[in-house]
Amino acid sequence: MSALPKALSDLIGNLERLPGVGPKSATRLAFFLLASGDGYAVSLVNNINRLKEEIKICQKCFSVSDKEVCDICADAGRNQNQIWVVERVMDVLALENVGGVKGVYHVLGGALNPLDHIGPDEIKIDELLARIEKLEDGVEIILAMNPTMEGEATALYIKKKIENLNSKFEIKITRIGSGLPMGADLEFADMATLQRAMEGRRQI
Amino acid sequence: MSALPKALSDLIGNLERLPGVGPKSATRLAFFLLASGDGYAVSLVNNINRLKEEIKICQKCFSVSDKEVCDICADAGRNQNQIWVVERVMDVLALENVGGVKGVYHVLGGALNPLDHIGPDEIKIDELLARIEKLEDGVEIILAMNPTMEGEATALYIKKKIENLNSKFEIKITRIGSGLPMGADLEFADMATLQRAMEGRRQI
Repeated sequence: MSALPKALSDLIGNLERLPGVGPKSATRLAFFLLASGDGYAVSLVNNINRLKEEIKICQKCFSVSDKEVCDICADAGRNQNQIWVVERVMDVLALENVGGVKGVYHVLGGALNPLDHIGPDEIKIDELLARIEKLEDGVEIILAMNPTMEGEATALYIKKKIENLNSKFEIKITRIGSGLPMGADLEFADMATLQRAMEGRRQI
Repeated sequence: MSALPKALSDLIGNLERLPGVGPKSATRLAFFLLASGDGYAVSLVNNINRLKEEIKICQKCFSVSDKEVCDICADAGRNQNQIWVVERVMDVLALENVGGVKGVYHVLGGALNPLDHIGPDEIKIDELLARIEKLEDGVEIILAMNPTMEGEATALYIKKKIENLNSKFEIKITRIGSGLPMGADLEFADMATLQRAMEGRRQI
């Protein structure tokens, strides 16, 4: 890439750090920005700058918002006693896109992962327990972490912590369903998924 | 995506306009920018802003440069009588990465494409002919446009234009080789490629 002016190779180098962007895509993006004229590049730069100014973290659920408390947490129509616990903000979007969530969310900000030095203090577990302690009867906590090693460990850890809360009320704890994804082929499913599907069978 | 603050959904909307970036990738990139902290976002914004200030178009070959004439055109070790004619700046990079080009380049800025209203005046064909007219004996023009309908049409058009120049010297015109790509499977090649490979066979 020695044939490239420095401003362009610097941009390509930085674009390569984006997730899912390799050297070829980064070059393509840089030339697109170069060719797109001032309008697009300026509006993109403005968008990025606005992030830092406008985006806040919701003080209740730790999702993103432009207010102190996000629209979902502030929604009087939502059941505050039903908390969907997820790893990341994008998981909130995924569930909201499906629709049907009548409760609220709690974004942990990750999952327990000793190899990456992420312990219980690095994610918002204490904050979840504090939220639960303020709730009264009819509470359901849905542990919607990813069905990965880390997500499973986090779910088990949180389940134990909730059980140790000594709440006066019964707290229902569920885990999102795991099994074969829609359209999948039983023949090609991995063993762990197949085992989950067998265990998680439901009457129809 | 109604759950998202406006600053974030605006950024996602703009990122979706990048080539090869769909709604899911755009969301992923936006959250990466949000989470990456000020350092990365600021340096990316600076990179984009620098493009407009620092990048010039080479007055000889129409590639990108930070000078009026690019390093390749200014290189005394390059054979100015051998011109590799390409569609885009990225094609220059691809050929330079392979190495072995001892000549210089000419970036047309596209290929003839009547459906997109790109005629001979929209790309740098007259500029190429003017360059060739200034050259003396031993000129080779390599037409390295893509082996697509548009690239082929452009190559034929330029070939005729060069032949009509009435140069005092003979001008050698070649087209880059076309056929099966390395590692390809004859069985799965499309007919046009296979035909080219049959026509373009060489003695070994």
